[in-house]
Amino acid sequence: MALDAADPLRALLGARFVEGEAVRAQHGRDEAHHAPHMPDAVCFPDSAQETAEILRLCAASRTPVTPFGAGTSLEGQVVPVRGGVSLDMSRMNRILAVNAEDLDAVVQPGLTRMALNAHLRDAGLFFSVDPGADASLGGMASTRASGTNAVRYGTMRENVLALQVALADGRLIRTGTRARKSSAGYDLTKLFIGAEGTLGVITELTVRLWGQPECVVAAVCPFPDIAAAVNATILTIQMGVPVARIELLDEVQIRGFNAHAGYAMAETPTLFVEFHGAEAGVAEQVARFREIAEDHGALGFEQAAQAEDRNRLWAARHNAYYAAKGLRPGAQGYVTDACVPISKLAEAILETKADLAQSPLIAPLVGHVGDGNFHLAILIDPADAAEKAEAERLAHRIAERAIRLGGTCTGEHGVGLGKRRYMSAEHGEGWAVMGEIKRALDPLGLLNPGKLTPDA
Amino acid sequence: MALDAADPLRALLGARFVEGEAVRAQHGRDEAHHAPHMPDAVCFPDSAQETAEILRLCAASRTPVTPFGAGTSLEGQVVPVRGGVSLDMSRMNRILAVNAEDLDAVVQPGLTRMALNAHLRDAGLFFSVDPGADASLGGMASTRASGTNAVRYGTMRENVLALQVALADGRLIRTGTRARKSSAGYDLTKLFIGAEGTLGVITELTVRLWGQPECVVAAVCPFPDIAAAVNATILTIQMGVPVARIELLDEVQIRGFNAHAGYAMAETPTLFVEFHGAEAGVAEQVARFREIAEDHGALGFEQAAQAEDRNRLWAARHNAYYAAKGLRPGAQGYVTDACVPISKLAEAILETKADLAQSPLIAPLVGHVGDGNFHLAILIDPADAAEKAEAERLAHRIAERAIRLGGTCTGEHGVGLGKRRYMSAEHGEGWAVMGEIKRALDPLGLLNPGKLTPDA
Repeated sequence: MALDAADPLRALLGARFVEGEAVRAQHGRDEAHHAPHMPDAVCFPDSAQETAEILRLCAASRTPVTPFGAGTSLEGQVVPVRGGVSLDMSRMNRILAVNAEDLDAVVQPGLTRMALNAHLRDAGLFFSVDPGADASLGGMASTRASGTNAVRYGTMRENVLALQVALADGRLIRTGTRARKSSAGYDLTKLFIGAEGTLGVITELTVRLWGQPECVVAAVCPFPDIAAAVNATILTIQMGVPVARIELLDEVQIRGFNAHAGYAMAETPTLFVEFHGAEAGVAEQVARFREIAEDHGALGFEQAAQAEDRNRLWAARHNAYYAAKGLRPGAQGYVTDACVPISKLAEAILETKADLAQSPLIAPLVGHVGDGNFHLAILIDPADAAEKAEAERLAHRIAERAIRLGGTCTGEHGVGLGKRRYMSAEHGEGWAVMGEIKRALDPLGLLNPGKLTPDA
Repeated sequence: MALDAADPLRALLGARFVEGEAVRAQHGRDEAHHAPHMPDAVCFPDSAQETAEILRLCAASRTPVTPFGAGTSLEGQVVPVRGGVSLDMSRMNRILAVNAEDLDAVVQPGLTRMALNAHLRDAGLFFSVDPGADASLGGMASTRASGTNAVRYGTMRENVLALQVALADGRLIRTGTRARKSSAGYDLTKLFIGAEGTLGVITELTVRLWGQPECVVAAVCPFPDIAAAVNATILTIQMGVPVARIELLDEVQIRGFNAHAGYAMAETPTLFVEFHGAEAGVAEQVARFREIAEDHGALGFEQAAQAEDRNRLWAARHNAYYAAKGLRPGAQGYVTDACVPISKLAEAILETKADLAQSPLIAPLVGHVGDGNFHLAILIDPADAAEKAEAERLAHRIAERAIRLGGTCTGEHGVGLGKRRYMSAEHGEGWAVMGEIKRALDPLGLLNPGKLTPDA
């Protein structure tokens, strides 16, 4: 199907308007299990103005537009289910300013988190939000991503100060300022964070930076069973120990590391922890945590003092999804994302593990447990309908349980295609209100249609 | 003028529907200089359902509704400039749940911050957001309030997890959950925070709590001049010292304390600072800060180690506005609220002080300087038009300067009537987008009309 907007888009973008099948196929899927759907064309804008002009042309011809960052989404956010244009932001990957004295940076949306951190390293600064993948910052803002540092440094919600956004009708707006707080009206910045490109396309971000901590201690702390690991986490948070990271990996996930990446860890539920600060404060945190861990029967506390040991540790953690897939070569991961109040975390995890004990599928569990957030990567053969149905059954129980326990069906992966079915249960009439906001800002329903909000 | 909705509202509320002049007059103004305007009646709902029903009845009769908390707003937010109903939430002041194990509480909007903290004290918990006044939590959420602790614990934006909101058409929705993070769609919680009752009326809040720090050190640190005090603050923030509070009070404000409250402090620009944590970490923070302060010529560092000395210190700070007014008995305070990136704070404050040196008016300066936020209380005789014009001139220069320096005209007081004139300069086309959201959720324009958004 040819696009009505093809001629003006080609005139605007030249070779950056692509209709070839290989590129379209590459923009028809993300890293998860959702059915692919190709766009009719892919646009590669070079500037905010060009992005806005693409949206204006698409509005004029009623062409759907689905933004695409690094393609690492896990709920089908980038899949252009209604065809039209895939808007690939990867060429807009520049760092426009680093304001070291204000601990912020202004960047384009196609920049990835690792590229930003590589640039910041020599200045003694870092950007904290670290999902598993090397995602683009525009995509991370759009899914309200988080990662291992969120327990201390917050999610994208806390780490984006301001945005520039291209609206459905081609207007370009700025939201927020570089001031650290403001009461100047509706928080449009926060409205676009997590909107998955359904209200506008992010063309620039002002992100918060942090100074590299003076002293960092990381450690691996195995436990005899998962209840002990989770209860130690809960107490650590309740006691106010300001851990920078506290990650749970179950025995199945550790087995994945050992098999996939040459580690030789005890195959038992394990916490990876990290403490940041000045020296005496960190020593105090470590002592406090060790006491809690020992009270819960921890089997050890192996400190990774050197930077390279720490990097190896966290590289393993970030590659958990890929290591998990290594447990069943050729399998696809069906990934869940429950997040509950910390007091409900043991219940949520233990019931999940009990479900898994009754299931034929392998599903390693990892969690940003300090936030009450955990994932399964349920390993399935995507061609096997029975396995897919079993994964769906498990995932459904996890999502419903999270909502029942006062939490959310998605802590950090977003809604996309996969979690839309739970929005009504989680938000009630609030989901209809999301639809009303959607219609106000995108009355033609062209921005990432079929995602997040109710059908118009 | 009688209200069209009077009969059904009286039927619903009985004696809690009030048309007497004294009560109406009390609901016609806030603590600031804005011209009062009386509502036609005042409603005192007892429940969320009753609040929603009031809104439904007002929508049916096209009656404007202006929410009222404790009446301590500073930009005219509670003034019902188009008449109609003042919706006084003060009877809805219950604590519905304290979830100590999750560090959160569920409260009604009429509860004040001090009442909540009095309840929490014995549990070893506290709610951190502390504007000067004993404001209601619904009002604080609606203006996105902050205070002295925001530099460490965040503003209302970071400390409200979830809301229940009555919409213009009488629907009652819930936004957010008790989970600490979520990617489940548009962040409606953040949309209603700072919306000043123009999108809905908050009927319940889930707020974040904090454990009382084990160790607290507070101190008073005078400086030879304001540039030294500000530059010491900037470096403290840039070095990442996690101060819990860092408040600037200029020599005029200190004179106000000495005159009004019987203090005997050196009348020179002074920082009030506080450090929270475990013992060794706090000692480290204090040492780091003292070094920075001494490098900037600090004249002393008087520690208030006892809880009662600290309480006296912070009571003085919270009463700054009233102490400032004591400098000129009978005067009214015309309060400004600029917030800029920290690197621009010295420029913003020094230019402001230079303006004041040329002005006949007295205007003490206080600031939550760790956030880049500072206030003047310009003392005027409200009956003197020339003084009012001079205050407006000074305030105008401060607001424009803040926006020019990449900041905001209102860090924590909100827009209301007073800052509406700057919204276009600060947000550009973003202000129009706020109007589009307003029309989507309040198509009849009945919720706090005349505030925040552009005229319909």
